[in-house]
Amino acid sequence: MDYESYFRKQIDGLHREGRYRVFAELERHRGSFPRATRHADGGTEEVTVWCSNDYLGMGQHPAVIGAMHAALDARGAGAGGTRNIAGTNHDHVLLERELADLHGKEAALLFNSGYMSNWATLSTLAGRMPGCVVLSDSLNHASMIEGIRHSRARCEVWEHNSPEDLDRKLAALPPSTPKLVAFESVYSMDGDIAPIAEICDVAEKHGAMTYLDEVHAVGLYGPRGGGIAEREGLMGRLTVIEGTLAKAFGVIGGYVAASAALCDFVRSFASGYIFTTALPPAIAAGAAASIRHLKASQSERVALHERVAALRARLDAAHIPHMTNPSHIVPVMVGDPIACKQISDALLDHHGVYVQPINFPTVPRGTERLRFTPTPLHSDADLDHLVASLSTVWQRFSLRRAA
Amino acid sequence: MDYESYFRKQIDGLHREGRYRVFAELERHRGSFPRATRHADGGTEEVTVWCSNDYLGMGQHPAVIGAMHAALDARGAGAGGTRNIAGTNHDHVLLERELADLHGKEAALLFNSGYMSNWATLSTLAGRMPGCVVLSDSLNHASMIEGIRHSRARCEVWEHNSPEDLDRKLAALPPSTPKLVAFESVYSMDGDIAPIAEICDVAEKHGAMTYLDEVHAVGLYGPRGGGIAEREGLMGRLTVIEGTLAKAFGVIGGYVAASAALCDFVRSFASGYIFTTALPPAIAAGAAASIRHLKASQSERVALHERVAALRARLDAAHIPHMTNPSHIVPVMVGDPIACKQISDALLDHHGVYVQPINFPTVPRGTERLRFTPTPLHSDADLDHLVASLSTVWQRFSLRRAA
Repeated sequence: MDYESYFRKQIDGLHREGRYRVFAELERHRGSFPRATRHADGGTEEVTVWCSNDYLGMGQHPAVIGAMHAALDARGAGAGGTRNIAGTNHDHVLLERELADLHGKEAALLFNSGYMSNWATLSTLAGRMPGCVVLSDSLNHASMIEGIRHSRARCEVWEHNSPEDLDRKLAALPPSTPKLVAFESVYSMDGDIAPIAEICDVAEKHGAMTYLDEVHAVGLYGPRGGGIAEREGLMGRLTVIEGTLAKAFGVIGGYVAASAALCDFVRSFASGYIFTTALPPAIAAGAAASIRHLKASQSERVALHERVAALRARLDAAHIPHMTNPSHIVPVMVGDPIACKQISDALLDHHGVYVQPINFPTVPRGTERLRFTPTPLHSDADLDHLVASLSTVWQRFSLRRAA
Repeated sequence: MDYESYFRKQIDGLHREGRYRVFAELERHRGSFPRATRHADGGTEEVTVWCSNDYLGMGQHPAVIGAMHAALDARGAGAGGTRNIAGTNHDHVLLERELADLHGKEAALLFNSGYMSNWATLSTLAGRMPGCVVLSDSLNHASMIEGIRHSRARCEVWEHNSPEDLDRKLAALPPSTPKLVAFESVYSMDGDIAPIAEICDVAEKHGAMTYLDEVHAVGLYGPRGGGIAEREGLMGRLTVIEGTLAKAFGVIGGYVAASAALCDFVRSFASGYIFTTALPPAIAAGAAASIRHLKASQSERVALHERVAALRARLDAAHIPHMTNPSHIVPVMVGDPIACKQISDALLDHHGVYVQPINFPTVPRGTERLRFTPTPLHSDADLDHLVASLSTVWQRFSLRRAA
């Protein structure tokens, strides 16, 4: 078999479908987020980033940077090994305590990414409880789906954000069957929010565990940044809360917070936890500093939600159609992969606005979109420039306006 | 179902088997590796680390630390997003070029860990080539096994390091079947080295792709630290070379190096690549600095191999039995999980020697061991102290001596 030709043919298919991904090569500048320098075609140009998941700009916060410099000088670059073999640093232990406290749980487990925390925890829980059935929201993130798939446990997909459908699916299972309900709080691509209380009601009624992915909510919602479950006073009802250190907290890594026994179980049996070098101490120290800051400070959250409202108001005034939702994510639907890429290219090349086109498999085909994530660091002038640029592009491509 | 009781019962089982893992909580000290402060029972004590995978101490090298400080100041803490959505930083691109050059390949792809690079690449290659059969060495690492398992492709396990058995297994498959031979160069627990040339001969004869995991070899072997395949002039014959930035290079992250088409294929289809926040720019910059240094400098490699030989000679003189192998890994076999833990505890508590007991599932049951990894930073006095400590413990536990 000619493997090279096979790979090239598959890539050609992506080009034909208009969903071949071109990565924008950026240099972020600490102190001037959301500005970045883009490298392209041998040259560079200045852009404003409108699609980062560093939602609060904590990636340039002095408390975070300072903690990382200090840990780097004190402890060196890497962790030195897996958590089990020479790699558990004091900073990991402190961070796990910080995370357990954030979610009001007995314990927390740190992973190298949110992807890995979902994949490893779900595959271990579902795979190591004989007969376990996973009840998975139909719009769950790829990392959850792959973790469930890897477990080889039976999986029932329930209608997105529908406690009624979840109830029906749970009721059809024998009472003695171990059950795990997996869902997210803020869904990253539509920005809608799960009815967590109702889902917990249903899960409790049927004796199911609950697993909540809060990666697009931690740091951003709740009085201490504990996420939607904290805001709604529900953290105690969830069996597992999963989060990330790479979005609102501005660094890298993922985690789960849960009972001590559950965390010890995952720690002891999850291949993806056991056989991975631990995160560098400086990363753990930076993430802990970010969490501590956002536990106490409201100003970043207040500013974020104000900026989101300001962008939505300007989009409305300019009749640029955007999806209504109760979160900080502002999706502008295009519905075609090729047009989505063209619009994004026009914004980047002619207006210095960087927003990546979101195509399949990140979103379903036909729902291709631009996904804007304003931060506290986007100024009024940034918002005005974005909306003026969108208006120009909307005109040029004769796109549909909102009423 | 009472989930908490179930988790506790499973943990109790590990305790009974003597393979419950207790993580040593360490503070490494930049500038005085391999010394560390251990936190335990509310107090601290100084230890010498004898089981780190920071094989060359690059985790405290000024070139690495300096590059990380500079990138942290210039770019901030996190990457800002996935590689596709606002997260590709110039530092990632430079690092991928450095890696492609290290292995003489057209391209390289950076992952958040070696685990993820194996899991994502193998599951994507094997899962997305219809009818692909994976030929997997029987002692391959967990991350490779899980990646192959996740692909759902047929997998044939061949006898460890046996090109003859691989030949038989390949010959039994139709010529038109896509085939992927997956193996490692240095096997981390026994320290033995694969006959790469013979394996390539067999793979080429049957038209199979080859996938070589060099995580315990990159930085350590070959004139530029390209690994065993570089040392033996074989890099060009391998389809994929996988490596890590977390061991000899002293930082964190994993990668594959291969043809441009193969890398683009994995980049475009691997869920674990697409849906993960990119590594922080400072991590990429530190890893690139480490690779550049080890491409040019031989002194760390020379010192490492001298230290390994010196430890082996001292162990022989003290009649401490250790496994002969051609690598830098010095396994001392115990063969029982409880004894292994007791010996390790005695070394730690009474002699300030930290070496983690290695139990199932990291190694097969009955082959429990202590695994020593001397570094260029272990002094003659450190070696003398280790061997004297081992002698005392050997005496105390009436362990078998070498002839």
